[in-house]
Order: sequence, then structure tokens, then C-alpha cells
Amino acid sequence: MKFKELKVGDNNIELYALVIDCKTKQTVNQTPYYGLILSDGEDQADARIWTVSLVNNLKDKAIVPGEVYKFTVKVNDYAGKNQIIIGQVEDVDPNYVDLSSFYKSAPISEEQLRTEIKSFIKMIKNPILQKIVVELIGKNADKYFRHQAAITMHHNYRCGLAYHVYSMLKLAKQAVSNYPQLNADLLYSGILIHDIGKTIEITDNKTPSYSLEGNLLGHIVIGLTMLSEVIKQFGFEKTDEAIALQHMIAAHHGELEYGSPKEPMILEALALYLFDLTDSKLAGTCEIVGKTEKGTYTTQIPTLGRKTLYVPKIEE
Amino acid sequence: MKFKELKVGDNNIELYALVIDCKTKQTVNQTPYYGLILSDGEDQADARIWTVSLVNNLKDKAIVPGEVYKFTVKVNDYAGKNQIIIGQVEDVDPNYVDLSSFYKSAPISEEQLRTEIKSFIKMIKNPILQKIVVELIGKNADKYFRHQAAITMHHNYRCGLAYHVYSMLKLAKQAVSNYPQLNADLLYSGILIHDIGKTIEITDNKTPSYSLEGNLLGHIVIGLTMLSEVIKQFGFEKTDEAIALQHMIAAHHGELEYGSPKEPMILEALALYLFDLTDSKLAGTCEIVGKTEKGTYTTQIPTLGRKTLYVPKIEE
Amino acid sequence: MKFKELKVGDNNIELYALVIDCKTKQTVNQTPYYGLILSDGEDQADARIWTVSLVNNLKDKAIVPGEVYKFTVKVNDYAGKNQIIIGQVEDVDPNYVDLSSFYKSAPISEEQLRTEIKSFIKMIKNPILQKIVVELIGKNADKYFRHQAAITMHHNYRCGLAYHVYSMLKLAKQAVSNYPQLNADLLYSGILIHDIGKTIEITDNKTPSYSLEGNLLGHIVIGLTMLSEVIKQFGFEKTDEAIALQHMIAAHHGELEYGSPKEPMILEALALYLFDLTDSKLAGTCEIVGKTEKGTYTTQIPTLGRKTLYVPKIEE
Amino acid sequence: MKFKELKVGDNNIELYALVIDCKTKQTVNQTPYYGLILSDGEDQADARIWTVSLVNNLKDKAIVPGEVYKFTVKVNDYAGKNQIIIGQVEDVDPNYVDLSSFYKSAPISEEQLRTEIKSFIKMIKNPILQKIVVELIGKNADKYFRHQAAITMHHNYRCGLAYHVYSMLKLAKQAVSNYPQLNADLLYSGILIHDIGKTIEITDNKTPSYSLEGNLLGHIVIGLTMLSEVIKQFGFEKTDEAIALQHMIAAHHGELEYGSPKEPMILEALALYLFDLTDSKLAGTCEIVGKTEKGTYTTQIPTLGRKTLYVPKIEE
Amino acid sequence: MKFKELKVGDNNIELYALVIDCKTKQTVNQTPYYGLILSDGEDQADARIWTVSLVNNLKDKAIVPGEVYKFTVKVNDYAGKNQIIIGQVEDVDPNYVDLSSFYKSAPISEEQLRTEIKSFIKMIKNPILQKIVVELIGKNADKYFRHQAAITMHHNYRCGLAYHVYSMLKLAKQAVSNYPQLNADLLYSGILIHDIGKTIEITDNKTPSYSLEGNLLGHIVIGLTMLSEVIKQFGFEKTDEAIALQHMIAAHHGELEYGSPKEPMILEALALYLFDLTDSKLAGTCEIVGKTEKGTYTTQIPTLGRKTLYVPKIEE
Amino acid sequence: MKFKELKVGDNNIELYALVIDCKTKQTVNQTPYYGLILSDGEDQADARIWTVSLVNNLKDKAIVPGEVYKFTVKVNDYAGKNQIIIGQVEDVDPNYVDLSSFYKSAPISEEQLRTEIKSFIKMIKNPILQKIVVELIGKNADKYFRHQAAITMHHNYRCGLAYHVYSMLKLAKQAVSNYPQLNADLLYSGILIHDIGKTIEITDNKTPSYSLEGNLLGHIVIGLTMLSEVIKQFGFEKTDEAIALQHMIAAHHGELEYGSPKEPMILEALALYLFDLTDSKLAGTCEIVGKTEKGTYTTQIPTLGRKTLYVPKIEE
Repeated sequence: MKFKELKVGDNNIELYALVIDCKTKQTVNQTPYYGLILSDGEDQADARIWTVSLVNNLKDKAIVPGEVYKFTVKVNDYAGKNQIIIGQVEDVDPNYVDLSSFYKSAPISEEQLRTEIKSFIKMIKNPILQKIVVELIGKNADKYFRHQAAITMHHNYRCGLAYHVYSMLKLAKQAVSNYPQLNADLLYSGILIHDIGKTIEITDNKTPSYSLEGNLLGHIVIGLTMLSEVIKQFGFEKTDEAIALQHMIAAHHGELEYGSPKEPMILEALALYLFDLTDSKLAGTCEIVGKTEKGTYTTQIPTLGRKTLYVPKIEE
Repeated sequence: MKFKELKVGDNNIELYALVIDCKTKQTVNQTPYYGLILSDGEDQADARIWTVSLVNNLKDKAIVPGEVYKFTVKVNDYAGKNQIIIGQVEDVDPNYVDLSSFYKSAPISEEQLRTEIKSFIKMIKNPILQKIVVELIGKNADKYFRHQAAITMHHNYRCGLAYHVYSMLKLAKQAVSNYPQLNADLLYSGILIHDIGKTIEITDNKTPSYSLEGNLLGHIVIGLTMLSEVIKQFGFEKTDEAIALQHMIAAHHGELEYGSPKEPMILEALALYLFDLTDSKLAGTCEIVGKTEKGTYTTQIPTLGRKTLYVPKIEE
Repeated sequence: MKFKELKVGDNNIELYALVIDCKTKQTVNQTPYYGLILSDGEDQADARIWTVSLVNNLKDKAIVPGEVYKFTVKVNDYAGKNQIIIGQVEDVDPNYVDLSSFYKSAPISEEQLRTEIKSFIKMIKNPILQKIVVELIGKNADKYFRHQAAITMHHNYRCGLAYHVYSMLKLAKQAVSNYPQLNADLLYSGILIHDIGKTIEITDNKTPSYSLEGNLLGHIVIGLTMLSEVIKQFGFEKTDEAIALQHMIAAHHGELEYGSPKEPMILEALALYLFDLTDSKLAGTCEIVGKTEKGTYTTQIPTLGRKTLYVPKIEE
Repeated sequence: MKFKELKVGDNNIELYALVIDCKTKQTVNQTPYYGLILSDGEDQADARIWTVSLVNNLKDKAIVPGEVYKFTVKVNDYAGKNQIIIGQVEDVDPNYVDLSSFYKSAPISEEQLRTEIKSFIKMIKNPILQKIVVELIGKNADKYFRHQAAITMHHNYRCGLAYHVYSMLKLAKQAVSNYPQLNADLLYSGILIHDIGKTIEITDNKTPSYSLEGNLLGHIVIGLTMLSEVIKQFGFEKTDEAIALQHMIAAHHGELEYGSPKEPMILEALALYLFDLTDSKLAGTCEIVGKTEKGTYTTQIPTLGRKTLYVPKIEE
Repeated sequence: MKFKELKVGDNNIELYALVIDCKTKQTVNQTPYYGLILSDGEDQADARIWTVSLVNNLKDKAIVPGEVYKFTVKVNDYAGKNQIIIGQVEDVDPNYVDLSSFYKSAPISEEQLRTEIKSFIKMIKNPILQKIVVELIGKNADKYFRHQAAITMHHNYRCGLAYHVYSMLKLAKQAVSNYPQLNADLLYSGILIHDIGKTIEITDNKTPSYSLEGNLLGHIVIGLTMLSEVIKQFGFEKTDEAIALQHMIAAHHGELEYGSPKEPMILEALALYLFDLTDSKLAGTCEIVGKTEKGTYTTQIPTLGRKTLYVPKIEE
Repeated sequence: MKFKELKVGDNNIELYALVIDCKTKQTVNQTPYYGLILSDGEDQADARIWTVSLVNNLKDKAIVPGEVYKFTVKVNDYAGKNQIIIGQVEDVDPNYVDLSSFYKSAPISEEQLRTEIKSFIKMIKNPILQKIVVELIGKNADKYFRHQAAITMHHNYRCGLAYHVYSMLKLAKQAVSNYPQLNADLLYSGILIHDIGKTIEITDNKTPSYSLEGNLLGHIVIGLTMLSEVIKQFGFEKTDEAIALQHMIAAHHGELEYGSPKEPMILEALALYLFDLTDSKLAGTCEIVGKTEKGTYTTQIPTLGRKTLYVPKIEE
């Protein structure tokens, strides 16, 4: 059952939900309770557990954010909105319940992403570039194809990192046709590895957060370290290919004030920056616009500095 | 004969060249002479006319920038470089000499551009959008398909404006496939007319410059005026289509400090801005990179704030 | 009766007040109530309606922000401040109650403003400028003379737009005497129409807000569209007068980052910008300073980026 | 005789001119000569002295910038422009020649300025303010009424400082009528003394330059020091009048990045800043616009960051 | 007894604490109570007084922030944290209780600071500089050696101003050895007096705040006024020493946007700015880092724009 | 013989000088000549070779910038300044002439720098930090102790890099005593290696320039790569010591817009940034101030954005 199907007065409803957040709170007369934010895979909703001892029967003796539970609830009216009151909570056996629908994921499957991205890697004819890219993605493949690309911004879902790379590659392919001066091998290689550092910057938990390296170094510096190790392993240190790839990771935020220690100084680094900018702005915005009724304004959009857009009533 | 074929000691060489600039100067002992900048369609070169009376036999009794002449020259060495000394100058009969090679033009012909752009216009199914676009481009077609897009920056050549639009449309087509939330009709319409004001901002001479309206109003305000006239003519004033198109012209520079009176507030305006940015940065840069030897640095690139890029030695 | 006359313990007091805001809220034990912000024309005050069914006898079955009602109230002490508890609410018959005192208005009447502004229009001797100004103001006269100039900033009251224009005209008249190089006809014309787009940017309700055109285009673009229609109607398209007026509307925010697509490029556009800046900063600030006791600090001032000023104790 | 009356071929012409600059130069074959910039009080012109020994008969054995001399000249053509060749140079007896026309001065005389400014001082009724202003201007009166207000920017001529103050006072008088909350006594007092530090910042020579205090402290800090001395002399240290005046000098550049150590925090300081901004932008611009033909563009305008304006062809 | 020793269930505990803040609040059923923030000299804690009449027996009939009281308390559990409930409050006799531990103070005593700073003053051999420094510090000695240097930023504790000067002098001494071109006399003199205006900018109460002069003029302008009085008193007005010291106070914030009316234009002013920056950033940060467990992140650091640092687990 | 000893009329003077620059030029009548910039180790001077065949007897058949030659010269007067005319030029045998005086070097010798820096390395007690620092400096020792720290800014001379590190270490030692919360081991380690990437960023020639890695990656990214190789070699990858050192190199420019991909997030990184800033500003400035007469202004100072300082006449 989805949250949008609930209505005031419902009672003894069983539903499965992912816990986004669970905090101990206290009523004005100082009785403790739990305030939760739940997700049914589509929408989020607030809920309350008035009886804190309810959680004692759980495996962990506590409600763990990032896990899915089975809840038995009733629905009250609170200031004109539904309020979910939880009467019972039980652990879920992943063998019997399909959890995938609770975790937001990329629009296409991990398998498809692996296939599509590999077909781009095969297009790289320059042997130095290909070796570096194959090795760097290969040794980090599990994380590379499953990681999310951000915590709160664009592509913040499973396989978000790989999906972001795939979208950029498609824009780049069109650009290679528009602008024949672009070196396709170099451009594809740069796009494929530009965010490799995110596999370490963001932890791989159910509720991802920034690692210590993520906070102190950031994914550009981490990615440069990962790349330089592969370059050394193959003995490619002084090649233009190696230096160009290092430059492309370093410069992919486009401007110093966005955290790039160098601004783009080769054509393909400039193109990489422009496609990264385009995809990061459009992907996050499209997701929110897609949920907004025509003729109304969207909610605040994180990748646009919390701006609000209008969705015009225009038929195609 | 091209400039790059000239060598010191050549004499009585006949060549056709476009005059970029022609200024009266004076030697240290105060003898007047002409200093010229010539173009053979590929390269530019300095030249001098020591005998100022040479020009008297010309139709205009003067050398007019923007025109092609037949010159008879010799080549001196000046500080290690070729110096072209003009001994004779004659008018050129356009019936006997093909002038097109002297004027820089878009990579594809005006006819092809008309065909390609019209095929995009046909894809617009929304009747309001289509009517506006057809009318606005139709009544300005001659200028629209022949104008250059800028004076010193990107696409500063014949048909540059239409070629810029065409490149953006191709990027947009890929994006419509990547991001299904984009309204293709609106996005294509916006791209097709976003720079329409440039047909008035920049004069249509052989040596284009900014018009009075161009200086005082700029192509965004001029384009908005041209658009609002067509909107009124059809009675589309309060439609979302009309307001969205006006917004897209107003917002296409993306940020207030780049001269847009509004920042993008609809998804397709955001996409338009990103493709305009991408094409304007890449097109101008590619042109210069294409003329640069691998393993060396380019000349200063106007669209990149006069930055210099490195062109790596990497085989595809 | 005014809010400042109320004191704790008052009961069964009848008072007329304008509703600024009315929201449904809920007590900790989840009983709904209404939280209101009222205005007596001078001050604002919070109030509560504990019995939500009270509103059922109203014409609209609801309390509508922007309307004046008759309230019967008592006054409690809440944390050392007056708390107004509403016991009864009734519709008001505008035929029997003078509502004008509840709506903030310009310091002089609409009639005076019409007279003063028309006398400036008569000073314009240049026939092109005069025709444009007369037509543009004439066809929008009702809104032009009644609109407020902003929603939260300066001149946010009835006739605020016209009063802002009038204040600028007086500054300009002194300037024309200081600086004889100023073209008075052009300067007055520009001032008279510079904010004409606000008649469409801001809706003309009792509680004004931004229209769709206001949000997507802004008053500069809207004003330019209104002006270009009048220019076309008279056939003045290529005159310096028409282009100068268009430029003055476009440039009146003075800098690109304040939303002007062009910075002032004629002397009178520069002067217009400076008087607009001066009046917008001083008018809003003076209003707040006028309500502040000498020797103390003001509340935060919206037009000054929420800064606080000191009002010195200095006798004149 | 004025420079604009000279024509090529003139010989043995006697003219009086102010020397703006005089530098020793050298021809290509290393013969020394003098390159001069002369002013006839209206225009400037370049001139040359080929015989350097010519200056030996002068009182100072040298040509001193800032002085007026009698020159005997001929006029050559140099690259299409007049070139003044000086054949003889003589000292000028100020008893026989009226030098005033060579030095640029305010549009009204020093006497008029003294009268006008004193009438404003008399309007100040607050005794503390009046005492401070009378004393501060009185003890610096000679410099105050004769100094120029800047070296290269606006009001860079004799009596420029006092004329700038007078223009601001007239704007302020209109503003006091527009905005009754303004304390006229405080505003006039602040305007009268805001630039008092310029009497020390800029040296009082025929060719003014920045003094050491000017370079290291600037006119705001110097003015504050001059004011605090007068405040102490009268024992007004802790009065709101004294603190407000100090604040007004400190804040009159309006923003920290323009060199004010405090931004305006009282209403009259805000008004002072706005009138200073307005007069400094308009006065310098008007002077250049007044010399520009209608329908053309001005030269670069120093107070507008070297921007160029258009002067429209519009009759009043 | 210190706050960290309290545990839930404690009752009738007597403790001495400094009141940071005391506000009247109200429970949901509108019973008033006091909410306090207390300090035991090391940590801060919230506390409540449910019986407002408790304060009637105090000398001031009220709890005054900045004073130390004796409290009798019990400790409840509130949402898992200690909640201090005050049952009794009494005035404290300073003759019997040592209050110094409740007020945060510099790491070394006022006496030591006086000794250390005087030894630096004695190093100044230039008689003009020494006279000025001795007089300026001498006439303000009480405030100079006891004032805090800021309200919320760095060195916001008793003797903070003098301790800040002392830390800078030690850095400067090392720098004089590194860079022999530094004039030690001038550098030490400038450091000694650079913040003298803070003795007037910040009031000398137990709970310091900004004075009117502090708000309207700031410590740079106040310090310049204090300095110029001493310069005049000795007749040092035109000396390089006096002008250099004035410049050093004016320029010590380093950049216009940080409130300096002039940027450093002498070497020692540049050095002064750099040591001021270094000490202000490091002192405040070190204090917070010193309280943070290794391997964790600090709280937000005021002098770093509220950034959070990581304290690595690294042994020395 | 030094340049300052030369006077007009000198002939057949022999002198040794380092060639900074040598360009082929041409007189107005198109005769080629060489224009040189020479250095005698203290000052620079322009010189000319009119007879271009003079260079044919040299070993390289050309004058090579960065080399010292023996010149035979005469001295002409050119526009009031000495002009050196070279009559003869010969190669120099380094076995017979001491060339060291022609190359600018650090104030103390390479040997002293090695000793001083090693004594700081020995103070590092933490074994991980010490191993990393010893290895990183050890394997690059020749470049580390001889490189210059910049091309045009501060420390642009032999051993400039090591001297910059040494100056910072001395400031840091004082700071460790001022601020006991600083981890001295970490701070010294960070300072010792922060600029290690400059050994590759800047080429090690007699006339240093930026390498390809220097242009495309910069010394921060290069240094990070060098460091991560050593970290991997010892297996220190996940230690706080390794991550902290990586962070310190990444953050040492202090702000994103100065090229640091991360701003300081640990205390010692903040301190490192502040000492780097202090030494880079003071060292370059002191050098120029040291050559400037008291009571005059300096030339433009590169590290201060080309600002000019005043050197006051103040005795110590």
C-alpha cells in the first residue's frame, strides 16, 4: 500500500516502508516518542510511535535508518493533513519481500548500464587511454556501477554515478559529430573516469554520507590519486595521454571557485566540463519538473540553488 | 596565390586579397604611406603601399575595407618576416573572379542550412509555437540565414547565425532523447528564434558592426520586440506558449550579469541556455584548435576570455 | 478603536480590522484554531479564533485576507504581551464603513498625483516623446495611477507607483537646473514611463502578488513590450526618441546584476537610474525612520538589505 | 589665438598657452627635442621644440608645467593632423596678460560660491552643528573655496570642491521637501564638510597631485582628523551631533569597497552618499556630453569607468 | 561543583554559576517561567525556574545576566539530557567567593601581560614613536589591559585585547629576525596601538556590547581619533612617524571590504595586517580545537565563517 | 665592473654580464641589430649590438639567454640615460671566472639550508610523518634544495624553494609556542612538503619556465601525486597522518579561487596557509623595499598585485 492511498480514519493498515530518519522526541509534558520520516519508494511521509517500547522486539532493538520495516498503522487528521500513527513494527525478511522498490534507482538497470558503458569503452582505439580506463573502472567496477553520484544534489540514487556518465557519453557522441576537432577517444575516456573519486568520497551504505577522505580531499583529489596509481602501474607517466586525463579530472568543475585546481586548458577538458554542467543541471531539474503539474511552480530545486521553476501548460 | 606561398625576393607577383583594414600612416621623416591588413581567405598578412597616389586609379579613389582587389607585389624581408610591398592595385570584376573564397563562411552551405532548419521547424506540432516561429523566421529569412552571429567572438562568419542555431538543435535533439521531460516543441522553438535580434543588432555589411539599436538595446531586447509584434499579430498575447517564448529569449544568457533580465525559470529555458553556452564555447575553440599543431599551445581564444589551450599529441 | 488602545482584561470590544493573513493551526492536543495577522491601518497585531465554526456566518464562509471585518474581541496577557482573542466576526458593509483608512496609500491623493504628473507631461515639447508618453500612460491610466510600486520593498501601497514617479520628477527638475546638458524632455519622458511594466507585473488585487508575466518576464521586459507597441502604432520605429526611450526602460536598474539587460549608455538614462536609486532607497527608509523614536535604532529596513539604522537625537 | 583656429602652413603665429606637460625626447638618430602638451584653456594640443637651447632664455632655464608662456609657432601637417612646431618661447608677465582663462574653473565664480554656500550654512539652526561647520570651513576657507575636487575624475578644476558641495546642497534642498523625515540641519552640515579632507589630500599647486597624507590616509581619514580636532576644541565629544557628523564623513562613499570604513547607518548619511554619487556621476558626464555632437558617441568618461555614451539627436 | 559532575536524580545540589542569559518564557498552558543559560566557568548549561517568585528575595529582585549566584538545584532527565531545575537562588558575597573562575580570561594574568607588553614598549628606540605609544596606552591603560577584543569572535574574554597584542608581538619578533628590512620600532608601535579604539567600541560591562560610537564609527575610526589627539598634543603632525602610525591603524584590516579605508601602503602596515589575520584566525580556532576529541569534528568556528574542522588522530 | 660604474663616453670597457634576453630587431631603415637585456648580478641594463655578425665567433653562433659572456662596450648617451653599445662578445670559461655572482640566490647557502631544514625534520617524532617527509624530500633532494619557488613572484632565485620553506618553519616554531594546540609534527611536516610539486612544475634550467605538467596540473596536483606514491610505498593509505598531509598540500592556497581544491579543514592546514601567505607577501616585498630609498615610493611589487608602497623616513 502506498502513502497516497491512506486516508483519515484508516486503522490496522499494514504497510512496508523504508525509514529515512528516526529521532527521539518529547511531548510538552515530557513523554518521549519517536518521530520518523518514511518512504514508500515514491513519496515520503511523517509518522509517530507514541509507545517507545514497541521497538524492543526488533532485531536491533532499535529502528535503523536505511532499513525497510513492516508497520501496522492508523491514520489521524493533524491540522488538515494525514498523520500516521504506528501501532506495531516488525523486521522484514528480505527473502520474502522485494526491497528494490524502496530504494530509488537509475531509470535503467545496472546490467543495461554496464552494457552501454562497455560499448563506449570499446570505441576507444588509443591503446594508452583504453588501458588506463579499463584498469581504473575494472578494479572499482562494483562501486562504479552501483554508487550514487551525490548525497543531496543530482543523481542521488543507486547507479546514479554510472547513469550520469552514460548520459554525458550520449551528449558527447552528438558533439563529436558536431565538432570534428574533438578527439573522441580522449573525450570518452575523460568522461568515463571523471567522477571515479566519488566511489571513495561517498560511503557505500544504505544511507550514504561523506567519508573522511571525502571531506578532507574531495572526489577530484581522490580521483587523481586513483588515476596516478594506474598510470604508474603501466609506466605511462610522461605521456600526453596520462597528463591529459589527469588534467581532465582536475579541471572538470570548470572554474577554480567550484573546486577545480586548474581551469580547462585542453579542448576535451572544456567539453567534459560543459557536458557535466549540462547533465547535472538538467537531470536533477527534469526529475522534479516531471512530478509537477503543468501550469504550476515546482518545489525548490537543489541543483539550481533552490530556485523554483514554472512548468508551462503547453501541449506537444 | 596564397600568402603562405610567398617568399622573400618574390617580385611582380599578382594576387587577389580581401582588405581587412587600410590606414594612412607616416614614416619618421613624415612621408605618408598606407598600412594594410590583407586576407587571402585563409591567412592574414600586413602589407604596405609606399606610393599613396597608387589608389587614384581605383573606382572609389580609395581602398575600401571589405572589398577584394588585385595586387601586384614584391616581398621584402623585415626583421626576419615577409613584408609585402604593393606596387599596383586594381579593382576586381566580380563577374570574372570568384569572391566567395575570400569571405569566411559556415562549414555547410546556406541551402543546406535552410533545409536542415526547416526540417526542425516541421517537427513542431504545437500550432501556436509553429505559427510564431514560421512567421518570425519567415519575415526575416534573408538576414536570418546569411547573418553572422558575432563580430569578434564565435560564429563570426557568413551564415554563422543559422549555423549556430543548427548546431544547438542537434544537441537539443540528443537531449530530448536523454531527458523525456523536455518539451521538444518548446525547446526547438526557443532555439530557433533565441538570437533573432542579432539580425538587427549587427549591420549586414561586408564589414559588420553594431547598429545603434545594437549598442543601446542589444539583441535580447530587439528580439523581444520582434517577437511581441508577431504575438500581437496573431492575438496570442496571454498564452503560455507566447509567454514561455518571450521568457526564453529574455533568459538565454543564463545569468543577470551576462545581460539576461531574467534567469531561466522554465526547464526548456534552462536547456536553451546550456546548449547556447556549450555551442558558443566549443565552436569558437574548435576552430582555433583545428589550426594548431598537436603538442603546442593555441593562440588566445576570444570566447574563453583570451585563454590559451594546449593541444595534446594523442592519436585516435 | 486602534490596537494601541487595547489593554489586558478588555472584553467585548468591537473593532474593525483588515486581515493580512489567516492560517489554520492546531493546539498541542490537536484542536484546530485560526491564527490571524490584523491591521488597523496603523499597526499590525496577532489574534486567535479558538472556535473555528465562528466563520460559518460570513458571506464567504471563510476569512479572506485583504478584506476588512468587524471583530468582537477580548484581550489576554500572553507572555507579557497583549493577545487578542476573537469571539465574533462579521462582514462589513462598505457603504456604511469608510474602508480607506485600512489600506495604506500614498501621502497625497490620486487626484493630486494625476494633476501633478499631467503638469510634467505638458512640459514635454518634443512631439514624438509627448505622443508616446501620453498614449502609453493614457491607455493604462487606471492602473498607472492606482498601482503600488512593489510588494515588499519601497512604495508598497496604493498609488505607490505614481507617487514614486512624482518624487523622481521633482528630483529631476532640480537636476535639470543643476546640469543644463540634460535633455529635460527626454528625462521626464523616461521617468514617466520607466515602471509602466509594473501595471502588469503586479496583480491589481487587494493583496497584490506577482503575475505569471511578472515572474517570467519582469517589469522591464513587460514595459519594453508595451512601449514597442505604441512606437509601432505611431510609426516611430527608427527615431532616436523611440530608441532612447526603449534604452531608458531597459537600463533603469543601472547594472546588469540588478536585471537591466543594458547599462545606461545615454546621459538621461544614467540620470534616470540615479533618481530611481535615490527615491527607492530614501522613500522606504524615511517611512521607517519616521516611526522610530530619536536616540534608538530602527527595525530592519527592506530596501537596505535588512540593515538597521540609528536615529540620532538632534534638534533642528 | 585658439588652437582650433590654426591651420597647416601657418607660420610665425604668436599664441599664449598653458604647459600641461613637457618631456625630453629623442629622434631616431638620437637628437634630443622637447615634446609638449599645451592647453589654450579650451582644447589641448601636442607641440614640439626641435631646438632644445630655446629654453635657455627663460627665467627658470626650463619650461615648467603649470605655467603659461608666449609661443611663436608654425603649423605642419603630420599624418593628416596639425603639428605645432615651436620656434620661440618667452616668459609671460602676469601683470599684462589675463591668465585666468587658461585655468579651468567652476561654472560660477568663487565669490558666488562663497555667497551661496554661506546662505546654506545660515539655514542650520542647531547650534552644535552650526558651530562645528562654521569653524571647520572658516579655518580652511581659502583652500575650501579654491581647491579642485579631484585630479582626474569629476570637478577636477579650480573651485571644483566648493562647486561640488553647492550642487549637492541644491539636490538636498529638493530632497528635504520630498522627504520630510530628513533632518535638514544634519544633512546640510554633513554635505558642507564631507570632503573637507580633500584640502589636504590634494596639493594646492598649479599641477595638483596627491600629498603623502593623501596617499597613505585618504580624504576620509584626513577629514575625520580635522573634524575631531574641532569637536574636541568645543567639548562636543559625546553629543549625537558630533558622532553623527563623524559617521557621515566616514560613510560618505557608501560601501566598504569604495573606501568607507562604515556603511551609512543614519538616514542623512544615506542621503549624503546618494547625492554625492549622483553629482559625481552626472557632473563629469555632463561636461563631456556637452562637448559631443548630437547623434555621435562621446569619448571615454572617467567617472563611468571609461565607458562611452551616445548623445541622441532629440530636440527639446 | 561543575555541570559535568551532575547526574539525573541529583537533588538539593548547591552550585555557583554565572548567568549568561535569563528570559521569561511561558508553558503551553501559559504559566510563566524563567529559562536560563548558566556557565560554571568551563561549560554552559540550560536551566529552568518554574516558580518565578523565587527571584524576589534577590538584591535586584531579578536575575541579572553577567552576575554569579548560588543556586540550589535538582536534575531531571529531559529527552535523554540533563535538565537543571532551580529550586532556590541567592546573591553571592564577592568577599567570600572567588568569582574569577567564572569569567573567561586570557591564558596569562593581567600583571604578566603588563610586564610583557612594557618590555616590548621599551625596545622602541625612536623617540617619536615611543612617546606616542607610551602616552596613548598610558592614558587608557586600565581599559587597554582589561578589555576583551571582541564580542563573539576571537579573544572575547577579559584581557583579550592585551593578549591579542602580546601574541602578535611575539610573531612580529620572529619576523623581524626573518626579514631584516622590517623597521622593528614601527612594527611594534603599530601592533601595540592598532586596536586601541576597541576600548571605546566595546562597552566595559560584565556583558559587553557595542557602544554608539562602536556602531557608527567602529574601532578603526575611533582609534584614529584617539591617535590624532596624541599626535597634536606633542606637535608631531607632519612627521613620517605620525603619518605611518595613522596609516597602520587605518590599514590593519588589510582590504577595503573588511573596513579599512586604505589598503597597506607601507611594509610594516602589511606585516601588521598579516599578523593580525594570523592571530585572529588561529587563536579562536585553537581554543575550540583544544576542546575537541581527536578523530572528530569541531563545532562551528565563528572566526572561520562558521566552518567545521576535523581534528586528526595523530600523536606527536 | 658593475653597470652603475659606467658613464657616458666610456670606451673599450670589458665587462662580464648574464644575458637575460636577446632579441633581433630592426632600425627604421630596416638594418637588423640585437637588443639585449643584461644583468651584472645586481642591476639590469639594456644594450645593443649593431653588427649582427659579431656573434658568429661564439661557440653557439648565437647569444643564449641564461649564459654569461664577456663584452667589450662603449657607453653613449641616449635620451639622458646610458646606452651600452657592444663592440665585441666572447664566450666565458667557467673554470676561470666565478659565475655564481651573476645568478640571484637565497640569502643563505644551500649547505646552510640543508642543515637547518634537516634539523626541523629531526624534530618530527611521529614515525609515519617522519618516514613520509624523509622519503619525499630525500628522493627529490637535489631539486628540492636548489629550485627556485616561482618564476616572477616571490623567491624567484636559486634555492628559493628551500629558503621559503625555512622561513615558514621559523614562523611556525614561534606559533607552536604561542598556540599549544598546534600539532608541531604535523605542521612542520606539512610545511616541509607543501611545495614539493614545484620541483616538477618549474623546469630546472638557467631560465626556468613552466613544464607541461606545470601548466596542465599545477604544483598542488603534482605534489599530491608525488605524495600519494610515497604513501602507497609505505602502506600508509588509510592513516590520519597520510590523509592530513594530502589535505595540507591540497588546501595550502587557502581558498578555492586561489587554486586549492579544498579549503583548510584541519587546524594545521589553516596555520600552513597563513604562514605561506605571510612569507610569500613579506619576502618579495622586503626585497624591493630594501632597495628603495627612505622617503620615496617603491617600484610596483609583483606579489602585491603590482601595488606601490611608501618607505617612510623613520630611524630605529
